[in-house]
Amino acid sequence: PDDQARRDALARHERLTKPAGSLGRLEELGVWLAGCQATCPPRPPSRPRVVVFAGDHGIARKGVSAYPSEVTGQMVANFLAGGAAVNVLAQAAGATVRVVDMAVDADTPEFVRAHKVRRGSGCIDTENALTDAEVRAAVTAGRALADEEVDGGADLLIAGDMGIGNTTPSAVLVAALTGAEPVAVIGRGTGIDDEAWMRKCVAVRDALRRARQVVDDPVVLLRTAAGADIAAMAGFLAQAAVRRTPVVLDGLVVGAAAVVAEEMAPGARDWWVAGHRSAEPAHTLVLEHLDLRPLLEMDMRLGEGSGAVSALPLLTMAARVMNEMATFDDAGVSGR
Amino acid sequence: PDDQARRDALARHERLTKPAGSLGRLEELGVWLAGCQATCPPRPPSRPRVVVFAGDHGIARKGVSAYPSEVTGQMVANFLAGGAAVNVLAQAAGATVRVVDMAVDADTPEFVRAHKVRRGSGCIDTENALTDAEVRAAVTAGRALADEEVDGGADLLIAGDMGIGNTTPSAVLVAALTGAEPVAVIGRGTGIDDEAWMRKCVAVRDALRRARQVVDDPVVLLRTAAGADIAAMAGFLAQAAVRRTPVVLDGLVVGAAAVVAEEMAPGARDWWVAGHRSAEPAHTLVLEHLDLRPLLEMDMRLGEGSGAVSALPLLTMAARVMNEMATFDDAGVSGR
Repeated sequence: PDDQARRDALARHERLTKPAGSLGRLEELGVWLAGCQATCPPRPPSRPRVVVFAGDHGIARKGVSAYPSEVTGQMVANFLAGGAAVNVLAQAAGATVRVVDMAVDADTPEFVRAHKVRRGSGCIDTENALTDAEVRAAVTAGRALADEEVDGGADLLIAGDMGIGNTTPSAVLVAALTGAEPVAVIGRGTGIDDEAWMRKCVAVRDALRRARQVVDDPVVLLRTAAGADIAAMAGFLAQAAVRRTPVVLDGLVVGAAAVVAEEMAPGARDWWVAGHRSAEPAHTLVLEHLDLRPLLEMDMRLGEGSGAVSALPLLTMAARVMNEMATFDDAGVSGR
Repeated sequence: PDDQARRDALARHERLTKPAGSLGRLEELGVWLAGCQATCPPRPPSRPRVVVFAGDHGIARKGVSAYPSEVTGQMVANFLAGGAAVNVLAQAAGATVRVVDMAVDADTPEFVRAHKVRRGSGCIDTENALTDAEVRAAVTAGRALADEEVDGGADLLIAGDMGIGNTTPSAVLVAALTGAEPVAVIGRGTGIDDEAWMRKCVAVRDALRRARQVVDDPVVLLRTAAGADIAAMAGFLAQAAVRRTPVVLDGLVVGAAAVVAEEMAPGARDWWVAGHRSAEPAHTLVLEHLDLRPLLEMDMRLGEGSGAVSALPLLTMAARVMNEMATFDDAGVSGR
């Protein structure tokens, strides 16, 4: 982000008809957006774009989710029909949604599977999620998707996730990169019961044993313990920073990808703001690790990008305040 | 709020294509709105209305604010010109703004001063804010304003405040009704320095000594230690409940009026949701006292209704999710 634009934004906030700082984090958000856009006042995001990365996970066979894997493909159809939560929230927030099949264990329409790497990623407690070639393909696809979207006019990016079982590899990645113990990263996901929670603990413990051996190489870590969807998200988030495009992060699954992306491209996080704090415990570790303070704390735990999209109106407001408010001079209001 | 509509809303959330509860507080908000409207799914607010209650306060002469009292009248003009923060935020959120002069110590346009009670409320450390007749007029005006707005089609109400010095009477009201000590309720308001903070402490201490004697009668308390703007807000918030109209509460000043309104009309708070947690310390006491959990925690401390309006898109989203999301059956998505 551009320092001069940030300084200009801070100075502008001093001249608007309010006590400086009295809009709190809404002011900080405007300053951040000005830095990302290298312009002051910042433009309200005009083409915010959500890309939902869908993929199945072999680990789901171990009973770590409350839902069967077939739901992943069914939800892809639901995204395409506009019936999922993120579709509705995005429409309310003025964003558009694209879904990409990275590793769904079902047939999806051709335009959705253009970047598909395989059907279902590996069962990470005992095998790698991906081959070397597959992880490279997935990361490259994520980067290409960010490029496509920015080239197509997107001026703000949101990654979303869809995939039964995907909080399990996410928890493994977060534990591997933050040094946390399994029980500290394991949440209820889609809403699992105690028995499924214990199965998830075992799965995370076994996968983490494998992941900790490759923690120094983020791409090898993705190959070992992520999946094509999460690997693609990591590439997408890293490339957004390369393209100097602001990102609103969602919850745990996107957050896990973000932690890896920051390893791949240190400093990328300057281009990200945390949309919300998920109810998943590992997400708080993500936020601490990336030193990001979430905009919303609504106890959401759906994924799809839903938490990030819910925060989008705050960014629009932050920018509009800087464009449309009167200054003390213009309005003839006395300063202090 | 209507219990059957609430139950219907809870049941509907079970059928939408997401794990039940996974949208967290966004789901709760939809259920609350359904209860207020006595219908499920709830309608997104179509005519949300902000009423900014402007008034000056004699206590400002004691140096409790960083700004001179003339700013109140200047800001009324700024609201009318559309240049204040709440104007911009409201436009972004699809709300409209009305400003009413309850006690501004300046001349304002006739349509703004229709309910004006006096020029500047009394200096509450040594005298009553209002006379008996004035406090009745102010509360009645607030009730009439709520009626006018609801009769005019408003389906969601937000009260905002504007008045140099107004966090001082607000702190007194909160301390009087929650039993807190002066230092626990005194914040930096518009951004005062240490010396002004000490003057504010003295003012609150002296006013609180007077207020505590009349704490059992909310209208007498308003007469003693509030002001025409805050008294009108209390009437407005109480009447919103009478009219079964949902309210998004703003920060400290509106919160102080809300605490008094709940004394005047117990149960009114069921019709209110807290838009945000202000950076003013006394506002946290308000939220605890009313048992309301804020939607946003953005460190805002501007007033004007700005925090409430910033949360408004979440209400729209909460309602739209309930109207527009597919059900498991419709979408052919497998349940758990």
